[in-house]
Amino acid sequence: MAKQKKTAITPTRVENYPEWYQQVVRAADLAENSDVRGCMVIKPWGYALWENIRNGLDKMFKETGHVNAYFPLFIPKSYLEKEAEHVDGFAKECAVVTHHRLEAGPDGGLVPAGELEEPLIVRPTSETIIGATYAKWVESYRDLPILVNQWANVVRWEMRTRMFLRTAEFLWQEGHTAHETEAEAWEETRKMLEVYKTFAEEYMAMPVLTGEKTAGERFPGAVSTLCIEAMMQDRKALQAGTSHFLGQNFAKASGIQYSSREGTKEYAWTTSWGVSTRLIGGMIMTHADDDGMIMPPRLAPSHVVILPIIRNEEEREPVLTYCKEIAVKLRTKRFHERDVEVVLDDRDINTGEKGWNWVKKGIPVKVEIGPRDIANNSVFMARRDTNEKAGIDKEAFVDGVVDLLEDIQQTLLKRALDYRAEFTKEIDSYDEFVNFFTPENKERPEAHGGFSMSHWCDGEACEAKINDELSVTIRCIPFNRAESGEGACICCGKPSRGRVVFAKSY
Amino acid sequence: MAKQKKTAITPTRVENYPEWYQQVVRAADLAENSDVRGCMVIKPWGYALWENIRNGLDKMFKETGHVNAYFPLFIPKSYLEKEAEHVDGFAKECAVVTHHRLEAGPDGGLVPAGELEEPLIVRPTSETIIGATYAKWVESYRDLPILVNQWANVVRWEMRTRMFLRTAEFLWQEGHTAHETEAEAWEETRKMLEVYKTFAEEYMAMPVLTGEKTAGERFPGAVSTLCIEAMMQDRKALQAGTSHFLGQNFAKASGIQYSSREGTKEYAWTTSWGVSTRLIGGMIMTHADDDGMIMPPRLAPSHVVILPIIRNEEEREPVLTYCKEIAVKLRTKRFHERDVEVVLDDRDINTGEKGWNWVKKGIPVKVEIGPRDIANNSVFMARRDTNEKAGIDKEAFVDGVVDLLEDIQQTLLKRALDYRAEFTKEIDSYDEFVNFFTPENKERPEAHGGFSMSHWCDGEACEAKINDELSVTIRCIPFNRAESGEGACICCGKPSRGRVVFAKSY
Repeated sequence: MAKQKKTAITPTRVENYPEWYQQVVRAADLAENSDVRGCMVIKPWGYALWENIRNGLDKMFKETGHVNAYFPLFIPKSYLEKEAEHVDGFAKECAVVTHHRLEAGPDGGLVPAGELEEPLIVRPTSETIIGATYAKWVESYRDLPILVNQWANVVRWEMRTRMFLRTAEFLWQEGHTAHETEAEAWEETRKMLEVYKTFAEEYMAMPVLTGEKTAGERFPGAVSTLCIEAMMQDRKALQAGTSHFLGQNFAKASGIQYSSREGTKEYAWTTSWGVSTRLIGGMIMTHADDDGMIMPPRLAPSHVVILPIIRNEEEREPVLTYCKEIAVKLRTKRFHERDVEVVLDDRDINTGEKGWNWVKKGIPVKVEIGPRDIANNSVFMARRDTNEKAGIDKEAFVDGVVDLLEDIQQTLLKRALDYRAEFTKEIDSYDEFVNFFTPENKERPEAHGGFSMSHWCDGEACEAKINDELSVTIRCIPFNRAESGEGACICCGKPSRGRVVFAKSY
Repeated sequence: MAKQKKTAITPTRVENYPEWYQQVVRAADLAENSDVRGCMVIKPWGYALWENIRNGLDKMFKETGHVNAYFPLFIPKSYLEKEAEHVDGFAKECAVVTHHRLEAGPDGGLVPAGELEEPLIVRPTSETIIGATYAKWVESYRDLPILVNQWANVVRWEMRTRMFLRTAEFLWQEGHTAHETEAEAWEETRKMLEVYKTFAEEYMAMPVLTGEKTAGERFPGAVSTLCIEAMMQDRKALQAGTSHFLGQNFAKASGIQYSSREGTKEYAWTTSWGVSTRLIGGMIMTHADDDGMIMPPRLAPSHVVILPIIRNEEEREPVLTYCKEIAVKLRTKRFHERDVEVVLDDRDINTGEKGWNWVKKGIPVKVEIGPRDIANNSVFMARRDTNEKAGIDKEAFVDGVVDLLEDIQQTLLKRALDYRAEFTKEIDSYDEFVNFFTPENKERPEAHGGFSMSHWCDGEACEAKINDELSVTIRCIPFNRAESGEGACICCGKPSRGRVVFAKSY
C-alpha cells in the first residue's frame, strides 16, 4: 500500500464523506452551527462568497428585466391556507409567531404574552403574501408582466439540518412574476432555469442537468417544477435551483385578476424561482478536496493571497515593500466583472500554518515571497486547484494573473464535467441498477453510484418502489428525453418514452 | 390671497404634514402597507433606493476595516434575558415564536402545534446572539478586534407604525465589534458615528447634528449612545442613526473573555451601531416637496428620465432613435461611484401624466424630446430640485450631465442646511421656549418650532418635566457643548455646562 499523503481535512472524502463535508465548512471558516436549533452563523469568508453569488445573479436578473423589492417576513395563517397543496407542503415545518411580547410569569421568568388574534408564519416562501400584493397591483393587462425578485431570509423547520445544505433559516432569492398569458409564464419559467444553469456552470464551475420534476417532487401548488441538478463528489445529486410554472393556481388563491384586451376578467399566470445558500454547499461538494475548500475564481472572496516570508527583523521592511508593490499591481487588473482581490497576510504567525490556512479556505492562488525571491525578481506561486507550484518572474506573474485565474476556473469546470461523465451510466437492467446504487456490494465504494440514465414508464408506483427499495429518486425528466429513444421501464418493463435521471440525493 | 399653485400631492406640507408624508410615499411608489400589521412592502423604486444606500454604506464600512457576516434570525428567550436593561427594553414589543408546525384543529382549521421548549424571539437587534458567537471566537487578545457588520431584517412590535419611520419589520445594518481596550471601543463608536454623519451629508444631502444621548434615551444596555439627528421639514428631529459604546455589559452577559497580553482573563469591550430603512423616511422629509419626492442624485435609483414626445406614428421612429442615442451617450458617463442611469420611458400613455409620474418619483433630471428638439439638435430639460426648465443643446446637455447632477446634489444639501439654520434658535427663557414649541399660539404654524439650543442642568427631573409639558426631548448633548459657554438651565435655572439640543421628534 502506498504511503498515505497527509491531508488537511480528517476524515477524507473516502473515509467519511458527510463528516468530511462538515470539517471542510469548519476548516474553511465558512460557517458554524449556532445555539439556535438548525440555524447557522455564516462567517465572513462564507458571507463574502454569498455576496459574490448574489452580485452575479442579481446582475443576470436585472439584465433579464427584473427588479428587486421587499415583502413582509410574516405570513398570516389564513394566507397560507388559501392554496391547499401549498399549505400541506409547508404546515408541517414552519415557525409560528403567536405572541407579541414577553412579560413576567408566575415564577419571575418571562413568558409569552399579548396573544395574536391570528398566528403569523415566518415565511417559508412568499407566493401567498406576494400574491396578495400583486392582486392590488394588477388591474389591467397593461400592468403585466410583473417581474420582481426578492433577496431574503426564509425559515423551514427541518428536523435534520446540515450547514448550507439544509438549515432552518437560510438566505435565498425568490423571483415572483405574473403574466398575461400561459405562454409568457412558461417562457419566463424556462428562461430563469437557463439563467440558473448559466450561473452554475459559468460562475460556480458546477455543471448541472436541467429538466422537469415528476409530479411527486413538485413544489407544493405548482403545475410544473423545473430544476437544475448537480452531481456531488459522493455521486449523489444536489437540487441546486428550481423554477416553477404555477399556472393560475396562486393567481386564483390570491385573486390576481386583470381585465384583458377583450375586456374580460382573467386570472394572471404566475411563476416563481429560487436559489439559496445551498449553492455554497454545492460548491463545496463539487470542488473541495481532502485539503479543504477550492474556490472557483469567479466567485472567490479573494483571488490571491501574498505571504511574506520574514526570518528576521532586518528582512521585514524590504520583503513587505516588495509584497505591497505586487499587491498594488495585481489590484489594477480586472478579472471577470471584478478587480483582482488580493490579501496580504502579514500576521505574525508561523508561515506554514498561515499557508495551510489559505489552502483550507480555498483561495485560488497563493504566493510566497522571501528575500531570495526579491533577489531573483520572482515570486513562488501555488495554484489551489492542481497544487502546481513554481518560482516565476514577478512581471510575468502579474501580467499573467488574469489568464491564470481563468485557467483555474476552466480546470475546475472540466474536472467536474469529467467526474459527472465518469459516473453517469445508461442502465437498462434492474439488477445492474440495484448494484449501481448499492455500494456495500462493491470493493471500491468510492467509485460507485452516480446518475443512472434509465427508462421509466411514467408510473408513480415504479417511482415509489425504487425510492422505497433503494432510496433512489427521479432527479429530473430531461427536456430532451425523447432523444434517448424509447425503451422498457427499468422497474416494470412497460414502455418508456425515453430515459430519465435516477440518483440518490440530498 | 394669491392663486394657489396646483400641486401633485394633496394635502400639502402646510395643510397636513403627516398625511402629506404618506401621500408622498404612495405617489413616489416607494412602499405600501401590507395586510400584515405594521409591515410594509418596499416597492421596486423604494428598494432600489435602499440598495444604493446599502452599497454606499457597505463601501464605507469595508474601507474602515469591517467585514460582513450573518447571524440567526431567532434569539432564544434566555439569551435576551442575560442583560437586564436590554430585555426590559425589548420584551414589551417582540414577536415570539412558540410552535414549529400547524396541524388540523378541532374545527378543521389549522392551529399551532409542536410547542417549543423555549420560545424564540425574532431578533429586535442582535447583541445577545452575536455576543454568544463572539464568546466562542475570542480566546486571546490576538483574536481582537472583531469588526463585523450584518445586513438583516429585524422586528419590533411597535403599536403605532408609519412607513419607513417606524415599522414592525424593517431592514437595517447592525455593526458589532469587540475590542481589547476601552479606548479602542470608544474610538470605534465615534468613528462609526462619523461614517454615518458623512454618509448622511454627502450621499443623502441631509445635514445632521452629532452628540450623545441623555441617560434616559440610551440604547437598553449601553453605557453611552451617540447619535445623528436631522431636522425634518416640520421642524421635528429625526434620530437617523446611533452608535453605542456598550462597555463590558454585553461581554459580561455573553462571556466574551480573552487572555490578555499579561496572561490575565479580561472581558472584551464592545460596540454596536446601526442605521435602517428609516433613512428613507428622513430623505423624504428632508427633500420632498408638494409635488412629491426629490431624490438626491448620489442615491437616486435613476438619474435621468427621457420622455419621447410622439404625436403620430410617423414621428415614432426618428424620435425614439434620437432618444436612444442620447441615452447611450449618457450611460457612458460616471457620476459619483456609479454609471449615469437613464430610463427611456416609451410607455404608450399620456405624456403629461408620464411627466408627473417622474416628478412625483423625484428623478433628478427629466428630458423631453420631440420632433422640434431633433430639428434644433437640442433637448428640453427640467431639474427636479429647482423646477428650472430649459431647451439646451444636445451635446452640451450630455457633456454637462455630471456637473448638473452634482449641482443638484449640492443645492439640496444647501437648502437643507439653510432650513435647519433658519429654525435653530438659542433660547434662554422658558416662556420663549414654550412659545417656540407651541404653534397653536402662532399665526404661522409652518414657520414655528425647530431646534432650541438651550441650557440644561443635567437633571433628569427637568428633562422629564419638559417632555411631559411640551413633548420636547433632548435630542443630543453636542460633543462641543462646552463651546457654547456656561449658563442657567432653561427649566430650573441651576448652573448648566453648556447648551443641548431640544426638539420635538419622531
